[in-house]
Parts: sequence; C-alpha cells; structure tokens
Amino acid sequence: MTEAPPDVLRCAYAELVVTDLAASRAFYVDVLGLVVTHEDGDAIYLRAFEEFLHHSLVLRKGEVAALAALAYRVRSAADLDLAEGYYRELGVRVERRPAGATRGIGEAVRIEDPLGFPVEFFHEAEHVERFTQRYDVHGPGALSRLDHFNIATPDVPAARDYYEGLGFRVSEDIQDDEGTVYAAWMFRKPTVHDVALTGGDGPRLHHIAFATHERHQILHICDHLGALRQSGMIERGPGRHGVSNAFYLYVRDPDGHRIEIYTHDYYTGDPDNPVITWDVHDNQRRDWWGNPVVPSWYSDASLVLDLDGRPKPVIARAEARESDVTVGADGFARTADQEGFKLGHQV
Amino acid sequence: MTEAPPDVLRCAYAELVVTDLAASRAFYVDVLGLVVTHEDGDAIYLRAFEEFLHHSLVLRKGEVAALAALAYRVRSAADLDLAEGYYRELGVRVERRPAGATRGIGEAVRIEDPLGFPVEFFHEAEHVERFTQRYDVHGPGALSRLDHFNIATPDVPAARDYYEGLGFRVSEDIQDDEGTVYAAWMFRKPTVHDVALTGGDGPRLHHIAFATHERHQILHICDHLGALRQSGMIERGPGRHGVSNAFYLYVRDPDGHRIEIYTHDYYTGDPDNPVITWDVHDNQRRDWWGNPVVPSWYSDASLVLDLDGRPKPVIARAEARESDVTVGADGFARTADQEGFKLGHQV
Amino acid sequence: MTEAPPDVLRCAYAELVVTDLAASRAFYVDVLGLVVTHEDGDAIYLRAFEEFLHHSLVLRKGEVAALAALAYRVRSAADLDLAEGYYRELGVRVERRPAGATRGIGEAVRIEDPLGFPVEFFHEAEHVERFTQRYDVHGPGALSRLDHFNIATPDVPAARDYYEGLGFRVSEDIQDDEGTVYAAWMFRKPTVHDVALTGGDGPRLHHIAFATHERHQILHICDHLGALRQSGMIERGPGRHGVSNAFYLYVRDPDGHRIEIYTHDYYTGDPDNPVITWDVHDNQRRDWWGNPVVPSWYSDASLVLDLDGRPKPVIARAEARESDVTVGADGFARTADQEGFKLGHQV
Amino acid sequence: MTEAPPDVLRCAYAELVVTDLAASRAFYVDVLGLVVTHEDGDAIYLRAFEEFLHHSLVLRKGEVAALAALAYRVRSAADLDLAEGYYRELGVRVERRPAGATRGIGEAVRIEDPLGFPVEFFHEAEHVERFTQRYDVHGPGALSRLDHFNIATPDVPAARDYYEGLGFRVSEDIQDDEGTVYAAWMFRKPTVHDVALTGGDGPRLHHIAFATHERHQILHICDHLGALRQSGMIERGPGRHGVSNAFYLYVRDPDGHRIEIYTHDYYTGDPDNPVITWDVHDNQRRDWWGNPVVPSWYSDASLVLDLDGRPKPVIARAEARESDVTVGADGFARTADQEGFKLGHQV
Repeated sequence: MTEAPPDVLRCAYAELVVTDLAASRAFYVDVLGLVVTHEDGDAIYLRAFEEFLHHSLVLRKGEVAALAALAYRVRSAADLDLAEGYYRELGVRVERRPAGATRGIGEAVRIEDPLGFPVEFFHEAEHVERFTQRYDVHGPGALSRLDHFNIATPDVPAARDYYEGLGFRVSEDIQDDEGTVYAAWMFRKPTVHDVALTGGDGPRLHHIAFATHERHQILHICDHLGALRQSGMIERGPGRHGVSNAFYLYVRDPDGHRIEIYTHDYYTGDPDNPVITWDVHDNQRRDWWGNPVVPSWYSDASLVLDLDGRPKPVIARAEARESDVTVGADGFARTADQEGFKLGHQV
Repeated sequence: MTEAPPDVLRCAYAELVVTDLAASRAFYVDVLGLVVTHEDGDAIYLRAFEEFLHHSLVLRKGEVAALAALAYRVRSAADLDLAEGYYRELGVRVERRPAGATRGIGEAVRIEDPLGFPVEFFHEAEHVERFTQRYDVHGPGALSRLDHFNIATPDVPAARDYYEGLGFRVSEDIQDDEGTVYAAWMFRKPTVHDVALTGGDGPRLHHIAFATHERHQILHICDHLGALRQSGMIERGPGRHGVSNAFYLYVRDPDGHRIEIYTHDYYTGDPDNPVITWDVHDNQRRDWWGNPVVPSWYSDASLVLDLDGRPKPVIARAEARESDVTVGADGFARTADQEGFKLGHQV
Repeated sequence: MTEAPPDVLRCAYAELVVTDLAASRAFYVDVLGLVVTHEDGDAIYLRAFEEFLHHSLVLRKGEVAALAALAYRVRSAADLDLAEGYYRELGVRVERRPAGATRGIGEAVRIEDPLGFPVEFFHEAEHVERFTQRYDVHGPGALSRLDHFNIATPDVPAARDYYEGLGFRVSEDIQDDEGTVYAAWMFRKPTVHDVALTGGDGPRLHHIAFATHERHQILHICDHLGALRQSGMIERGPGRHGVSNAFYLYVRDPDGHRIEIYTHDYYTGDPDNPVITWDVHDNQRRDWWGNPVVPSWYSDASLVLDLDGRPKPVIARAEARESDVTVGADGFARTADQEGFKLGHQV
Repeated sequence: MTEAPPDVLRCAYAELVVTDLAASRAFYVDVLGLVVTHEDGDAIYLRAFEEFLHHSLVLRKGEVAALAALAYRVRSAADLDLAEGYYRELGVRVERRPAGATRGIGEAVRIEDPLGFPVEFFHEAEHVERFTQRYDVHGPGALSRLDHFNIATPDVPAARDYYEGLGFRVSEDIQDDEGTVYAAWMFRKPTVHDVALTGGDGPRLHHIAFATHERHQILHICDHLGALRQSGMIERGPGRHGVSNAFYLYVRDPDGHRIEIYTHDYYTGDPDNPVITWDVHDNQRRDWWGNPVVPSWYSDASLVLDLDGRPKPVIARAEARESDVTVGADGFARTADQEGFKLGHQV
C-alpha cells in the first residue's frame, strides 16, 4: 500500500434495515430507552444519552432485515480523501456521498471493505443535545453510548491484518495451540474494542453494543423484558465476559438483530497495552462464570448489504469453529506480551 | 391435634455435615465471607453480618455429607414444651437437648418431622457482636442474614399441610391445571419464605439461602469464583426469580451442598397477603428472564440424617416432576386470591 | 389500663393536606414515581410498587399544609373494637368511621392520640394490583413500600411509654449521660421502625419514609431533581444513618412536607433484638460519615390537624435539644442490652 | 515557541511526601485498597486494580507533607527529547533522570513547569500484573485506575494557555459574566480531564483522583471510614458533580493530602467535543444536588516541592475567588460551543 489510511476516531453508528418500524421502535425506544433524534415513515434515528452527534443507530424500513452500513468517524474532513484513495488502491467499491445522504451526517465515503462489509467514513455530523445530565428522561436501563461493532468473518487473521492496516490495534484474542485464531478484539478509541472479529460464516453482523455506566442498568433490561413477557428476546446473559472483563447481555430485536449491552471494560490507550490471548479451551473466556454460550449465539448473525442494497453472499468459515471446540479441563487462560515488556499473567 | 404448636419466629440455623473442614472453610469464609464465631477441629460456627445469635450455620466434620439439622427459633422458652407436646402427639421421634448440646444454643427440642427431616426448636442462644456496621470487615459480597431453607419432599400438599399446622402460611406456589402442586413457599417472618417445599425425591435438603442487601454483592461472588478458577461451583444464575421476585445465585459447596444467595423479595406480613400461584408451564416462574434451569438443580439435593446421624432413605416422588413439564407457549402466570379480596393480577 | 390495645401490624398510610395538587403530583408521581391508584379534584391516592392495598399516601387539597392522619393497619376487624375501647379508656377523642370514609379503606377508628396526633386504625382495605414485577413501569428511583413515620414530640419518654402500651418495641434510641432521651425508634413489623419519636416542638410530623431496594435508586432521585433544577428540594443527604444503618435521603415536597427515601435497615423481629443506644455526642449517630445535619432538619416539621381539621397548637420541647448538643470528641456510641443477654458492642 | 511539545498520553503517577509511612499505608492500602507493588523503609509504590505499570502513586517518607512530582506518560522514548527541548525553550528548570531514578520508571525528564509544579515525563516503565480480574483480592471499594490531577494555581487562563501549548484540550470550565475563569478541566486521554486547574493560591496540589466502576464502591469507602471511627477523613461528598457529571468523594489522607474517588464521567475524544461552560453563580456546578462545598475544600491544598525538594512559595490568587461568589438565583448553567457546530444546551 502506498496510500495512507484515514485517521479513524471510533465506531460511530450502524444502519440496520428492519422490517417493521413500529415493532423496532417498541424495542429500541420503549425497552432500550434510546433517544429519538428524528423519525419519519422510512427511518428512526437514535442516540444514547451521552452522545452529541445526530445518531448512533439508524433503523431503516426495508424488505429484508440486514446491516446497511457500519460507520466510523474520522478525525477531519481531509480524512475522507485519504479514505477514498486508500480504498481505491485496495480495489474495492468506493462511493462518495454528499452531506445529508444520511440525515444528520456530512459528506461521507462509503465502501465495500475487503471483508465484504458496507462501511462508511464521515467526519461532519449535526450536533444535538447531549443528554448526559437529563436524568429526568433517563430510564432505569439508560444507555450511555455506542461502544462497538462485532462482525462475523470466515478468516479472522485476514480481517485482523486488514484492520491493522487501518490503524486498529488488538487488545485481546482467542487462539488454540495450533495458532488458529477464533476471534480478535480491535480498537481505535482506548477501550477494548471498536470492532470485534468473530470467526464464522460471513460477511455477517454479529452484534452492535451499547455501554451503560453500571450493571444494574443491564439487569433492568432483563426485568423489563420479563415484565413484557418478552423474555424470549434475551438470548444470552447477563454475565461477565472473560475477554474484555465486561459485564454483558445479548438481546435480539424483532428482526433478530443482536444487541449487546455492555459495561466495565478497561483503558487500552497506552501503546504497550498488554494483549491478552485466551485459550479457546478455556471455559471462562466467553463467560467468566463458566455459564455456557447458547448455540444461537454462535450460529446466528445478520446479513449485510452491498452498496446497492443487495444481500451479500455468505461464505462459510473453513477453519475450526469455536462452537465445536472441547472445553479445556485445566481452565487456565494463557496471556501474551505484544511489546516485549515483562507481563504479569492476567488470571 | 389437641396440642398447640410452638410459636416459630423464623428459620434460624442449619447444621451441615461436611467431609473436609478446610475445604469448606475456604468456601464459606474465604469466598462467601461468613463470620467465624467459633471453630475447632470438629466444627465451624458461622454467622452473617447482621446476625447477633451465635451462628446461623454449623459445619460439622463427618464421613457423609448431609444435613444434620434445620433449626427454627421459637418465641419463648415455654414454646419448647409446646414443641415437645406437639410432636409427641404427632407420633414422631422427639429429643430434649440440654443447653450447649450445640455450642451457643440453649435448651432445645430436636425431632424427626413427619416429612423425615431432622428439625430443632430453640429459644435461647448466645448473643455475639452484630457486625451490621463493621464495614471494615465486610467484603464485596457481604451476606446479611440467613433467609430460608428449601427442602425436597415427594408430596408437597402433605408437606404444606404439615407446615400450616405449625403456623406457616403460603406466599407463592407452582401448580398445573390438574391441581398438581410442584412447589410451595411458606413463611413465619414476613418475607416470602422461611421454608420452601420443592417436589422431588426426599427427604433431602435442596438448599439454604443467605440474603444480601444489593445485587452487586451477588455478582461479586460469581466474579470471585471466576478469579479462583472455580466457576464450576456456580450451578445456576445469577438471575431473577419469577416466584418471590428475588435476585438469586446458586452455588455448590465442596461437598455439593447447595447455597443460594438471595435478595429483593418483598413484605408478606399482612394476613391477607395475596398468594401468587404460578402455572408450571410458565417459562418465567423459575427465572423471570426465561433462562433455563440446569438439570442438576432439579435432580441434586443433600441427604438428611436421622437423630442418630444415619442417612434417611430417600422416597421417590410419585407425582409429575417439574423438570419434565413442557413449558407453556402463552407465558402467563395465573394468580389466586387467598382471602376473598379483589386481587390485581400479578403480572 | 384495663383495656387491651389493638394488634397493630404496621404503619400503613399517611394523609397529607397539600395546597396545590398539581404541584404535589409533579413531585410525588413524576419525580418519586409513586403509582396513582385514584385521583380526582380533591385528592390523589398513591402507592409504592410492592404495595397491594389501595394506597399508602393520600394527598388531599386544603388551605393549610398539614398532616391529616397517620394510619396503622390492625390484624383483624375485631381490633377496631379494641382500639375504640382502648382509646376511650385513655380519655382521648375517638371517632368511628364507616367504610369508604377514606376511599379504599374499610371501617376505621380515628383518634387524637395522647401525643396530639390524628391517628387511624383500620383493617379492611381494597386490594389493587401489586406492581412488584411491573418493571415496564418502574422508574430508576422505584419506591417499594412505605417504611415508617417520624413524629416530633416534646417529651420522648412519655411518647415511648405510650407507644409501648400500644405494643411497639424500641430498636434504637439516642440519649445522653444524664438520661435525657432525644429520640427513639419503635416498631411492630420487624424492621427498625414503624414510627420514630424525635424530640422537638410538637405535635408535628417530621417525615414519612418510603423504602427502595438499592441505593442507586435513591441517588437517582437526587440526579433527577438536579436535572429539573430543583436541587433546592434536597434537604439532607444522601448519606448513611448511624441509627438504623439505613442509607437515606430527605427531600421536601412543594409544601415543605419532608419525605425520606430509605434502604438497608435490618431485621428486628426476635424478642431479644439488641437495643442500640447512641450517645447524643456521637457525631456518627445521625450520619455514619460524620456529615453535619442541616439546621432545617432539626427545626422544620409539618403541622398536624385535629379530627375537625384544625391545626393543633404546638408545644415547645422543654428538655435539651439535640440541635444544641456539642458533638463528642471520642466519637464512640454506647450500646445497651434490653433483655439481659450478653451483647456484643455495635460499633 | 519553535520546539514541539512531547506527545502526552495521560496522567500517570503522583509522588507524595508523607510524614508517617505506616499511617499512610493504613489509609491507602487498608482503606482505599490500592495494591502494593513494592515497599521499603523509604517509600510505598501503589497501583489500582486495572493498571499494568509499576505504580500510579508513590508515597515517600519525608519531613514535610508535599507533592514531589506529577508524572505524565508520553507516547515514545523520543518524546523525552522533545520534552527536554520544549522546556529548555520555555526557560524553566529541566533535569534528565536515568532509568530507575524512580523505581519501576525508565528514563525521564523532570521539570519545574511555568506554573511552579514539579512535573515528570516518562515513557518506559516496568509492567506488573494487571489485577483487572483478580476479584479474589478486590475489596468492596475497588479502585480501577488513576483518573486525574487537580492543581491550584492563581491564574487559570495562564495555566490553560500553558497546558493547551502542551496539547491538552478543555472539556469544561467555570466562568462569570465578566469573563473571569475560575477553573478549567483539560485532557489528553478522552475523559473529562487529566488535569484540572482550580483558581487559588498556588502552586499547590488540590487533589489526585482514582476511578471506580460503580458508585457503591465509593459509598463503601465512606462506610469503611465510619466503621473505623475515622469519618473526619471524609471532607466532602459523596455527591454528583455538575462539572464532569462524575459521582465523587473527597477524603483526606493522614497528612491532609486530598484524594478524590470518582466515576461516571464521559467520552471526550472527538475533536469537536462540546465544551461546557458553567456559570460560577450556578449552584449546581460543583454539586449537581446543590449541596454546599465545605470551606476547607476551597482553602486547603498541598504544598509542592521544587526539584531540590524544597517547598515552593505560594502566590496568592489576585482574581475573584470562587468561594466568595454569591450563588445565582436562576440556577441555570450556560454552555459554549468551542468548534462552531450547533450545540444543544447541556442542562
């Protein structure tokens, strides 16, 4: 590569196609409590309580439930030109979009990335009221901000290489003794991740995640779904991840899109932040308390669309699948030291 | 019956036989954080932070892990005579025990109850420092007090009749449309229960439960076991019960005795406290979030000893087992009105 | 006394006169989140989320903000006759009220008690839906139930004697070395109190208190008032009480009536529950963290009405006032043993 | 300036001189729960549970309690040369320190900054075990990481200009209508601050702050000090800040050094992060709940040492003091837009 990549700040918004806007609204607004910035007959633009850009989630009405775009914010308007050049050199499809092509978003570059995902880069966006201290409208399960995307891709090392080229770093990953990489967590903002790469049939969207401040806010979402007699929307958790140390919950929206609610990960901003490698046989890697992962969490994910709005074909993962791995009897994770410093073991 | 029953205040302590005192101490003291009132080569006497009697749990070394006694406190010394008379009329084995027969406990009456359980009634007990405000020694998973016993018994209606004779009232139960009763929760102190009756092979001890103030204290116990690489001791949960509304966790001690950590149930002290009857087909009765109950939770329980310290034979439940019931598709619990008042539905 | 007192279950509801129903509704419903059972142009009937009787708080429109009644629930309808006889022998004003005299409440006895307070005893009340698990309508500061009343009275020992005659027991009190009693906490249900007696000019209502499950629910109420730019309604706290160990917050309604939000006290139901006597010089008795009590908390309280709805004259306290006591340098509370058992020290 | 400043990652550690190591250890280790990386007769090196560098706090025994150094971590070893050149051009005292001059820290540059503070820049540091998931040793008040420094300086605009030159940005500040700046919060890592500038006599250290995940961990520290009968060490709070939205507590160590415990601020990493300007007359700026700031919080601060270890003379603030400002009656904060985007109002 001769072209420099754009300077990505962070994951910024996802655009999901949903088949029933009213049903989705009941889930995202009435249960999850996201704030409506704008809504009309075609789409709902949502944000969490500490966000000041126009939206971090767009729900757009369509025929087939799918991911329409993952959007990253870049540091400056000039990074759009870098993005355009970078992806043209990569040889993937690139489109320049004028300001307002997505409501509230300035000029943007949309591409189909080498992994097959529709990805947008933008810098300018409309500012809206930041509801950080609007406790009069916070509910008991208040979401603070978008935290990360998680994508399913057949070849995790290739995906990691691609994202490293874009300036992302690995915080944690899951491997086995043969060096098969099952998943990797990668970040630009100094948290555990902006994007996680999950080995599986892809390109598919595994989930998007919103952060809360405290765990009781996550527990409330479960209680709320129970009260609505919608406990079937709770797919996995709540629990404590081994990877990332975050407290988590996975719920499924009316179309089956998976949303994680997430809190308690850690600062990763130092250049020598220790990388933690978990053994795929470690029973506590996915749930620190050893609770089993439900099969649907491994198998299900959302289709993704190309830039023309057509579903991308799904390619099967050829390598070993995490869902088939026998859990280790010793139960100890192994850690790695990325930078050559002495590293205390993690567990 | 012509004899009056004793006036029971509440469940007060359990005596468990454990096979390795050091291993049990590591669990009950180092992980659960119970306070040691006394320990010697034969037994450890433990209490929770808000308790002022000598102990609420005795761990006694023995060959076979089992329940040695469930103890209820009665209102006055005179209730011991009532207890003796009541059980003699019931025709079960009755023993008068002098003060100190169990360290810290005054004179007592021990019986084998009609359900086959070794049960003690006592009034006097040694007072010890109440650690309510000893925050210098509270850990992050501080337990406040013993909350209840849960026993497995083949015939729940018979067990309920027996406990009603002893002055206990039902707060909630689980039934099906044919009137089969799968479980019942019964109380003297005004909480959801002092004892729960779980339909199953018995007499066996299903679990004893300790209360915390807040849910994060329960979550910490999970995190702590994870850090010790003992996540296998977490059997079920954490979760929110449908029945009782309590937030719960079930852990297993080194001998397999089951301990529940429990918080957030409700006041039941009014005489017309509405009884809630859950449909056994309601998927949210045992876990409000719909998470499945692990099979061991239905199948496993601790043996109980007779007054000579010999394990009681276990009688199989003849009626339908809750673990075999197909979960209902409608997902709605039904409620009953014990006292004839108009009752709002519970869910 | 030759007449037996009624068997009081617990504090059950308060009736407050407020001068602006809409303003009061904005506070009690929109901020505190109480559930409206009924409202009309004259009154609002409110309950907390775990209550199944018609109301625990009545706000009645009137010219002068005051307490109209403190109501205790009794065990049975027959206790109404006991109440009538008991108070007639005491020589105070007694009125029998038909069912429905207060909406949702059955037949009742209202009296002016010897301390000058308007007090009601009732047994029957309309049942309404218990919202324990209605997490779809719980807010982030959800109140579970009425916990206690706190009254200002000039002569605490006389008030304690009166309430002991009614079957209440002391859990904690505040005294000095000369034996002056500054305050006492008394209960029927097994919590720290159903009524607290605060030494001061009286008869006046110091506050009524609602319980939450966890402390974050109390903190939210502060945040919410901040967001409304109504932080002036926060009078004292949040903090941890020395007495009772409860986590607390005092807010003032639009008429100045004081409401406490309260959680984390302890079980007191055993007959030998240790009484804790705090030294009035102990700086941690009112706030375990040593934060000072604001002067208004000592000086302000609500007028009470007689049975004709006229404000009762206020009698000044003759004994030493707690607000004038110099705080002790040693900082240690002293404890007493009510029942003669060995008592561990509390702090 | 012709020289480029070093690329500062974040605030990294403070070195405090304390007069009694044992007393300080009882506070920082036994109460605050910091992890001891190393200790000897001269110093104790401490870190919080999520930190992987050798220490974030050094307590060094000395005659006069004071701040010996504030240390910032820079991105690379090359930044040390930049730091040296930058400060030499600024004309302040500069010292190059070899690796190990402070235990666990690589080569460093120490300077006396233009505000009079002893400041260190370093890149290399010894890695130690990160205790993120060592829940077996986390206490109920577990601290996650150092969050920020807060310094008292007479001329806040001059200090802000200096820190802006070093690449810090303002997240929030306090001003009045005449443009007097009373305080400013400035960051490199994307939180509300790495350093806050508080207008007052200086150079003095106002406090250093550690972060927790949840608020109950902060409340526990209060309860713990209460149990030790050390509530006098609690200076201010707990409360919710207006500025930063953080939940806070200020405690004083045995020498009077002030430590803040802090949680719940927000992400500031976008270049157009809205700056919030609070009116000094806004009663909720320092405490969202309107609780008053105690006078000592405005008046007291720690001396700072020059590079020879001698206390720096303190210069009085000439401008208006925040402690003297009359609180506004309107109670509304005003916000500013740093970058020219449309900005929703914050409150």
